[in-house]
Amino acid sequence: MVNYQASQMDRTFSALADPTRRAILLRLNDEPGLSISELAKPFSQKLPGMMKHLDVLAEAGLITRAKTGRTVSVNLSVEPMQAAMEWLNRYERLWTVSIDRLAALVEEEGGQ
Amino acid sequence: MVNYQASQMDRTFSALADPTRRAILLRLNDEPGLSISELAKPFSQKLPGMMKHLDVLAEAGLITRAKTGRTVSVNLSVEPMQAAMEWLNRYERLWTVSIDRLAALVEEEGGQ
Repeated sequence: MVNYQASQMDRTFSALADPTRRAILLRLNDEPGLSISELAKPFSQKLPGMMKHLDVLAEAGLITRAKTGRTVSVNLSVEPMQAAMEWLNRYERLWTVSIDRLAALVEEEGGQ
Repeated sequence: MVNYQASQMDRTFSALADPTRRAILLRLNDEPGLSISELAKPFSQKLPGMMKHLDVLAEAGLITRAKTGRTVSVNLSVEPMQAAMEWLNRYERLWTVSIDRLAALVEEEGGQ
């Protein structure tokens, strides 16, 4: 289970390590259910390149694709991104604790 | 500038896409300034493997290394991780807006 989660998070962060893929995710947030050709338009990406990026995002579980007739619509999938955020938030909380400790130390020194 | 930031964020997310590297970062958060051999101990990593992971983290700007005599101490570097969190937080805010919109729609339907 831990290994599964680790490799899920590996795929999430790996998928986020590309500016086009990050832009796709933000665009889908604003406009859920876009078709693949609509998605490709502003990115000056040829369709095969866009398909590859969407494959990476789908394998990481960050998007889902649904076919209706000849059109494939793309939607965000929430869970893997939330897991990544929880990891990062834990990291931020640890920083804050460190800063609080440091502030306490400075105050102690100031009080002496 | 945008390209620089994009590739910086690429490196950050790419460095986070590995469970050992994520564990190193969390450990450094609890114990700043650990030496490389102290860092390597709990990870059942041989030193060359650990050095490679530290190289990736240093190239991504997530850690700094300082040599004192024969000991290299490792510390976290805050900025790139904060940039990644800001990107993800923006994403979360967009979700929240979507959820609020959905809640408003449900309430509208309930009122009819």
